[in-house]
Order: sequence, then structure tokens, then C-alpha cells
Amino acid sequence: MSSDLFSPSVLHALDVAGIFVFAISGALLAVRKNFDVFGIIVLAEVTALGGGLFRDLVIGAVPPAAFTDAGYYLTPLVAAGLVFFLHPHVERINKAVTVFDAAGLGLFCVTGTTKAHEYGLALAPAVALGVATAAGGGVLRDLLAQEVPSLLRWDREIYAVPATVGSAVVALLIRFDALTGATSAGAAIAAFVLRLLALRYNWRAPRAWNRRSGATEEPA
Amino acid sequence: MSSDLFSPSVLHALDVAGIFVFAISGALLAVRKNFDVFGIIVLAEVTALGGGLFRDLVIGAVPPAAFTDAGYYLTPLVAAGLVFFLHPHVERINKAVTVFDAAGLGLFCVTGTTKAHEYGLALAPAVALGVATAAGGGVLRDLLAQEVPSLLRWDREIYAVPATVGSAVVALLIRFDALTGATSAGAAIAAFVLRLLALRYNWRAPRAWNRRSGATEEPA
Amino acid sequence: MSSDLFSPSVLHALDVAGIFVFAISGALLAVRKNFDVFGIIVLAEVTALGGGLFRDLVIGAVPPAAFTDAGYYLTPLVAAGLVFFLHPHVERINKAVTVFDAAGLGLFCVTGTTKAHEYGLALAPAVALGVATAAGGGVLRDLLAQEVPSLLRWDREIYAVPATVGSAVVALLIRFDALTGATSAGAAIAAFVLRLLALRYNWRAPRAWNRRSGATEEPA
Repeated sequence: MSSDLFSPSVLHALDVAGIFVFAISGALLAVRKNFDVFGIIVLAEVTALGGGLFRDLVIGAVPPAAFTDAGYYLTPLVAAGLVFFLHPHVERINKAVTVFDAAGLGLFCVTGTTKAHEYGLALAPAVALGVATAAGGGVLRDLLAQEVPSLLRWDREIYAVPATVGSAVVALLIRFDALTGATSAGAAIAAFVLRLLALRYNWRAPRAWNRRSGATEEPA
Repeated sequence: MSSDLFSPSVLHALDVAGIFVFAISGALLAVRKNFDVFGIIVLAEVTALGGGLFRDLVIGAVPPAAFTDAGYYLTPLVAAGLVFFLHPHVERINKAVTVFDAAGLGLFCVTGTTKAHEYGLALAPAVALGVATAAGGGVLRDLLAQEVPSLLRWDREIYAVPATVGSAVVALLIRFDALTGATSAGAAIAAFVLRLLALRYNWRAPRAWNRRSGATEEPA
Repeated sequence: MSSDLFSPSVLHALDVAGIFVFAISGALLAVRKNFDVFGIIVLAEVTALGGGLFRDLVIGAVPPAAFTDAGYYLTPLVAAGLVFFLHPHVERINKAVTVFDAAGLGLFCVTGTTKAHEYGLALAPAVALGVATAAGGGVLRDLLAQEVPSLLRWDREIYAVPATVGSAVVALLIRFDALTGATSAGAAIAAFVLRLLALRYNWRAPRAWNRRSGATEEPA
């Protein structure tokens, strides 16, 4: 089903890399929430595979890769094991969560958009599904941990913009027949760097009009 | 795939209308929760498309209309934009949320039941899926906003009954070959009015037996 | 689609039994959360059907049994009715929830793994999907009730291990051509008893390494 757009092995390698970094972010949040070892594994698996599972169900690619490709479902186990035994050596957990999450964001918006287009979606909904692939795992992670998804909060740095930029760049590359391993990696890096810049400089998105004046009356 | 039950364009127009009003309800809740502009867009999209997406996955209509029909995924963007710029002019946000939500409820239980039956479900599960289509987006909206879904709370006016009545009327209309644009609109209006009456007169559903006497010990 | 692995009627009976006991657990939690009668019905249906619905969507068995088999969607209604009228006679609600939940766990990990393998999944992912079938409804139940899923919490007795053992036993039985009604029931009972033992003796899973010393600083 992988088209001539893209080497299947490159797409697969990017996907597994994204799975690994998202799994790390899920496992670290589970540690922060004081979950047990199975909670760490579940949160690693859900964060890593949730977005791609949603994408595969939507495009009708069943059974989803998450359940057919051993690299997909074993990688989060490895990540969970690393976090379980090594996390005291991770100096700043919160910071590490966000950096790994940014890397997953970049990789998944690229692979999500590419796979959605390969399965016949038009470019605009392929961009939307790419963003959903990139953001979906994190939203599920936050819901399972009973936190308001970072994606939605005004007091968190922008998340949707980097994913949308990465996905839109992929759509443009497809449109102009320029999607290669190198240009895909470029799109992923663009989204990653944009997200890191947002974190570094505290870029936040505006809230609705009347909130801009006198916005403190109701905490999120 | 649209059968002779129903003009496809009427079904589509009702669906887009339901999407618009549900998106307004999602966007308004996002404003109330103090989310940023992307949170408003995400909550508008999820509320508007969540129920129908669930329906389409269940009946195997993939890729779901939410990702193939530009009217579906662009309408919530328009609704989010309207709420973003104009909501200070919306006098009573809470009231507006519930009225728009009631309109979406009426429209979606009709289109959900109709489409489920067109894809081969029997009438009883088609009614259930119609109710799920109508209520699903709102449940997802509440979960993302970290609120107990209104659907479940005893201190909220009944929501499931109007949806069930609307869906059951559609099932009866199908059963007696009387489903037309006009009768469908009637079913939607019946569910809408029933929901508004429930809101107006504070119709609530009973809790379990022992709760009726001495029910105050545990808040929901 | 039911293979020669297993008599379809036995699989169906086990599935309906699991649906019933999970529905009881969902309905009892709804009573504890003070939901109204529709909240009780919704939580009974979601808890009972959520895991199997997820399984069916993943393996492409659409429309899912939850929407085509009257025994599936009517059973939770019966369970909700029983709880609605009779629960004051249930002496210890919390205990009953966990026992019924354990029974559902045992039944669903067996039917989930069996059905996943029948639809072509390899044994390892079939085990994973069996665990997801068994745990999925409970996770959805907890999310809808706005509680941190028991599955993840370190201060709750182990849940994933019994499900994994039950699913793995089924996989071994399939591998060695020994899956029958009796051996399946044995696998279900093994998972059930393991879960009850975990509850009785407060078996808990470890948290991550540094949490073991000085773990009280952050409540889950």
C-alpha cells in the first residue's frame, strides 16, 4: 500500500523513531503521576501508538500497524523499560518530556500526512489527519492521566502550529512531487524546531476576544 | 451508498447544520474553559465531528465523511472563527451552549439513525447508534474539557430521552416507509423541542432506588 | 468468520457473560457517582461493550458485534435495570464492583485473544488485543466517571498481570492446538482467580526505581 511517494523503509524508520520518543514522553509522565510499572507501559504504548491507531482506523488500514508490526508494539516496551530503570539519571524530567514530545510531533505529522495521502485522502484532510496523528497520542496520554490536554491550554506553548506547519509542508512537497526522504526529514525538523522555539520563547496563542482584557477570572 | 430512503442532499444539509451548531457549542465551552484559539478550534471540530466519526467507524464507512467532505471539516472552523471574534456579543454563553447543543442533538439523532440503517444495521441498533451519534460529540467535548459528561449527571436535565425519541421516531418512519425530508425534520424538531422543554422545566431523570431518599451524601 | 478453533456458541456465551458482569460493574460505579438512570445505562453499556468494540474496530469486524447482536446490546440494559432497582440489597458495593469486574476481566481476555487470532492477528498482538479487550471497557468507564483509570494506579492491585496471563494461556493453547471450551474456561478462571488473589492479598506492582525510596512526595 506504500506508494511510490516514499520508500516504505524510510517511512517505517521514521514511524518507529516517533513511536520511541512519544513512548518516552508517556512513560515519563506516568512516573511523574506515580503510576506503577504497568501504568508506565500502558501510558508509553498509548502515547506512542494512539495517534497512528486513530489514523489507521480512519483510513481503513485495519488491522492497524500498531497490531501487526512487532517494531511498533515492542518499541514502547523498550522505552518503558529504559524509563523504569534509568529515569533518576534523567536530570529534568519535565524538560525531557517536552523535548521528546516535540521530536515525536515532528516525525508523526510527516508520516501521518504521508500515509493518509497514500490511502486516498485529499491534501487538506491529509494535513488534518497528520496533525491528529501527531497530537492524538498526547491527548490520549493527558486524558488517561486526568489532565487537561496541553494541546488545548492557553497557558501552554503552541503545539498545533508546528504540527500544522510540518503537515502542510509535506502536503506541498507531495503537490510539487518533491517528497523524498531528505525533504520529509526537513519537514519533520522544521516542526520540531518550531516547537522547541515555541517552548524556548514561550510562544502562546491568543484566547478569544474578550478574554484578552481581564482574562484572569476563570482558571482553565 | 445513500439509499432511496432519503435524498442525499437533504441528509447532507442536515448533517452540516448539526455540525455547525455542535461546533458553536464546543467553541463556546472552550472559551468558558479559557482555552486558546487552537483549543477553540479543536473543541469545535471534536464536538462537531466526534459523534459522526464514531458512527462512520462503527458502520465501516471509511474514510469517514469528516475527512472526505470539505463541508464537514471546514464548517467547525467557521464556527470557531465566529465564536472567537463575536462571543462577547453572545449575551448568555451558558444558555447559548445548551440551545445550540439541543439543535445539534435533534439533527444528529436523525442523520445518525438514517445513515446507520442505510449501512445495514437493524432498526434497534440503528436507534442506539443514532443516540451515540447525537451524544458522542458532546461526551468527547466534556472529556477533553475535563468535566463529567452532562449526559451522565443526575443534576442535569435529561439528554438521552430526547435523542432516543428522535431516533425512535426515525426508526418508525423507516419501518412504515414514511421517511421524507419533511418527516425527518419533524423528528429532529421533536427531539430539539423535547430537549428545550427539559431545560425549561428542569426535567431530570431519577437516580437509583436508595438514592431517592437521602441522596445528598456524595456529590457527583 | 468463527474458525474451527472454537465453537461459536461457546465464544458467544462467554462474551455475553463477560458483558453482563462488566455492565454490573459499570452500573454500580454509576450509582456510586450519583448518576441518573441514563447515566447508569450509558456506563453499563460502555463498560460492557467498550473493550469488544475497540477489538472489533481494530480487527476490521464492522459493524461490531456490539451493534449487530441483540444479546450484546440488551444485556447491559438488563444489568442496569437490576442495579437500578436492587442495589440497596447489594451489601458492599465497592467489593461487588471489583468481583464482577474480575469476572469480566477473565472472560474478555479469553474471548478477545481468541477473536483477534481468528481475524488473522499473530499470537503476540492477539495477546495485546486480548488485554485491551479486557481492560478497555474499564478504562472508558473510569474516564467517563472522571477517575484516574485503576489500571494505571500504583495504589491499586494489579490488573494487567491477570489479563496478560489469561491471554497468554489462550495463545499457548492455540499454539499447541489445545483450545477447547474447557481449556478456555480454565484460562478465564485462572485470570479471575489471579485477580481475586491480587485483591485479597493487596498485590501491587512496583513503581519506577527512584520512587521506591521516598515515594510520597506526589500523590497520583
